[in-house]
Amino acid sequence: MLKTAEHLYLQIADKLEQLIAKDVLKIGDKLPSVRTMSEEQGVSMSTAFQAYYHLEAKGLIESRPKSGYYVIFSPRRMPEMPKVCEAVKKPSEVTVHEMVTQVSQDMRLENITRFASAAPPESMLPAAKISKALIQALRKTPFAGVGYEPVQGNPDLRRQIARNSILWGGAVSEDEIVTTSGCMDALTLCLSAVTQQGDTIAIESPAYYGSLQLAETLGLKVLEIPTHPGTGVDLEYLDKAIPKFKIKACLFVTNFTNPLGACMPDTHKRELVRLLEKYEIPLIEDDIYGDMYFGKERPGVCKTFDTNGLVLLCNSFSKSVAPGYRVGWTIPGRYLEKVLNLKRHHSISSPSLPGAAIACFLENDRYEHHLRGMRKALHTQYMRHLQAIREYFPEDCCVSRPQGGFVLWVELNPKVNTYELYEQAIKHKISFAPGRIFSLQDRYTNCMRISYSNPWSKQMDDGLKTLGRLIRKLS
Amino acid sequence: MLKTAEHLYLQIADKLEQLIAKDVLKIGDKLPSVRTMSEEQGVSMSTAFQAYYHLEAKGLIESRPKSGYYVIFSPRRMPEMPKVCEAVKKPSEVTVHEMVTQVSQDMRLENITRFASAAPPESMLPAAKISKALIQALRKTPFAGVGYEPVQGNPDLRRQIARNSILWGGAVSEDEIVTTSGCMDALTLCLSAVTQQGDTIAIESPAYYGSLQLAETLGLKVLEIPTHPGTGVDLEYLDKAIPKFKIKACLFVTNFTNPLGACMPDTHKRELVRLLEKYEIPLIEDDIYGDMYFGKERPGVCKTFDTNGLVLLCNSFSKSVAPGYRVGWTIPGRYLEKVLNLKRHHSISSPSLPGAAIACFLENDRYEHHLRGMRKALHTQYMRHLQAIREYFPEDCCVSRPQGGFVLWVELNPKVNTYELYEQAIKHKISFAPGRIFSLQDRYTNCMRISYSNPWSKQMDDGLKTLGRLIRKLS
Repeated sequence: MLKTAEHLYLQIADKLEQLIAKDVLKIGDKLPSVRTMSEEQGVSMSTAFQAYYHLEAKGLIESRPKSGYYVIFSPRRMPEMPKVCEAVKKPSEVTVHEMVTQVSQDMRLENITRFASAAPPESMLPAAKISKALIQALRKTPFAGVGYEPVQGNPDLRRQIARNSILWGGAVSEDEIVTTSGCMDALTLCLSAVTQQGDTIAIESPAYYGSLQLAETLGLKVLEIPTHPGTGVDLEYLDKAIPKFKIKACLFVTNFTNPLGACMPDTHKRELVRLLEKYEIPLIEDDIYGDMYFGKERPGVCKTFDTNGLVLLCNSFSKSVAPGYRVGWTIPGRYLEKVLNLKRHHSISSPSLPGAAIACFLENDRYEHHLRGMRKALHTQYMRHLQAIREYFPEDCCVSRPQGGFVLWVELNPKVNTYELYEQAIKHKISFAPGRIFSLQDRYTNCMRISYSNPWSKQMDDGLKTLGRLIRKLS
Repeated sequence: MLKTAEHLYLQIADKLEQLIAKDVLKIGDKLPSVRTMSEEQGVSMSTAFQAYYHLEAKGLIESRPKSGYYVIFSPRRMPEMPKVCEAVKKPSEVTVHEMVTQVSQDMRLENITRFASAAPPESMLPAAKISKALIQALRKTPFAGVGYEPVQGNPDLRRQIARNSILWGGAVSEDEIVTTSGCMDALTLCLSAVTQQGDTIAIESPAYYGSLQLAETLGLKVLEIPTHPGTGVDLEYLDKAIPKFKIKACLFVTNFTNPLGACMPDTHKRELVRLLEKYEIPLIEDDIYGDMYFGKERPGVCKTFDTNGLVLLCNSFSKSVAPGYRVGWTIPGRYLEKVLNLKRHHSISSPSLPGAAIACFLENDRYEHHLRGMRKALHTQYMRHLQAIREYFPEDCCVSRPQGGFVLWVELNPKVNTYELYEQAIKHKISFAPGRIFSLQDRYTNCMRISYSNPWSKQMDDGLKTLGRLIRKLS
């Protein structure tokens, strides 16, 4: 075996990882400097640096500017992953959850420790840069944007989205894209285009309550598909369910589902597209969290395997740039004309300036730079939160291991009702999302969604400590 | 009889009106200056000025800055008003009109003489002032508007809309208002809130094709209600039709219908609300043209007579300030919660900055000032167009007399097919809206909608002359 530089750095990294696993190197410990490490191990500075970089990418250590590398994570004694939910007997008629309204309202309370929102806090968003882009757009747009833009959306924006499609493995043209008012509007238009009142659609379970409520307002029935916290929806089950329940369309988050954090491997994505083709049904692919990956590469999308136009890919800039701008988009494949007509009839066109501003922002390549910083921050926050949950929550709890996105899914002892927990937590000015709202069935009552979208702080630490205490009381 | 100043000015105005009617004073003639008039008639300057002002308000003369008063209109030999359409046997299943798509696309062609759009040209809109308001909003909104605003809409904007409600006779609070993405989105949300797929709704006839298409996308059936070009929908017919056709909701433009220009008198509005109460059905009141009146006072709305929350008033700033901003609103009465939920589920919230900008614009009282100028310009344009139609079109054509809005409705000899005319006109680079698109029935094929939203010019004059010539050939 050649003792190449590559193997050297991996050997060093492995050693350090073992020390961390055995708690020899504890969370918060400072590691030797890259120079010291290079001298001690008799390797080049570059090899020592590569070892640290590797561990950082694995989320075990972090570099602090002008200070060095610190241990931030230990993989030992980690809680189990949550279980896959059981399949249901029949699709559910959708009902509105007052719980959702309450959780949404509580989120806006002041002085609250927020674990409830699957969106970044404003402080994480590039407000100054996007404002600059807006001023630029104001100058650039004819008549300062007071007139209607084309129904399909700002051409510059569509061009930039097409240009960026290479990031998710696509190669689309601007003519295939329709801009929307955020991702929810994209989902609304796409669902309306492919279904009729009374139809049944398949959604992963647990699922974002917003998608369940959208299905309700469109008069659809929902079949919840068992979903693995690692690999996403159970395709074998889906294959049987489509004919059995006369599924007319699928609505899936393929990367980092909300709340479970599941990311479908590419092989599954390809297999899913094959299933769609077999049954000739469309997939509305919600990729809202796809850009927020922790690994080295962005996960792909089903759309790249779609040669029949059955996939309607939906996304937005709401999780990364500016939710308040409400700029989203869809690539609706063979349903392009239908989606365009619905957009035309429901709202004529999108507001001109927010889209033009996002186009300017993308044009200046600020997006990738901003995303890199955001992904890194989110990864660190994820590990901090996971670490604290491991420390403060009862040992029998299970926790998801998302490789991207904004949220953790925690499964507690079946005795614990997380809505009861929620009501107690709110009294302590702590918010989270109780599991019950992520299903139309009476399930997930012992689960909770914890967002790590806020920067780590003593307040967050105290919040999780208090939650842990409250959970133990209810166990 | 007292010879008061008031009577004096009316006497003078009457005399002038007679001279205009007898073609002694011809279109384009300059009137004596106010000073000359005051000396000649032995009245005060103020009385002479009042006489001119009165004639100007009646649309017979216009003042040109630094030049004086000119005759712009003569009431003699005016064409008849269009006839009321006949009632239909049953509600129509809605079908999409390819014609609409064609007309919409042709509207965007370059170098075209535009009589097709029921919206103001960009040059008529306050682009600079609204841009200034946007910059103001950018500074004022927390985090420069990158975050979500409340589902119900920007509070400042709702406050300003509430404050302005006095203009249409309302006295609403900001809590009753929901902001939307233009008026079409308001209509979409309201129709979705009060109907289910398969329901039948009542719409005036002829009706805006956008409303007919919206009904289609929502799976609704439409009963077209005979509508008088002066006074609006036939309430006697409606009273019988509601129980007979199981009407679930009405969707009416109450002021200056598009395309007919009908304005429902206040007595009719009150009567309509009484009908709604009798049958317990809602009215979606589209007041998009209400601010564009030519008379002394803004016409009222049904909403002011509504004590049971059955009226869902919809409007926007798209016809007056900035269609590209997509800022509209609704006051949905007893359906507030339903509309809010639909908005939440379909798009979470409105874009923050366009609404904040409109709020700043309204706050600075720029709106009323801008509206005054726009109304005056529209009135002049209306008369110019009407005049030219009278001159160039065959004598047997009937023309509506809108007291506001952007469009004229012309009924030609039944032999003329206006879609055929349209195809010929487009070859001459002239666009208008053929009558057929304003109904789901096979009617209005000899009608056309002529927009006077563009400033009068030789191009417009030539356009109408050419249209007249083409019509004569087809007659």
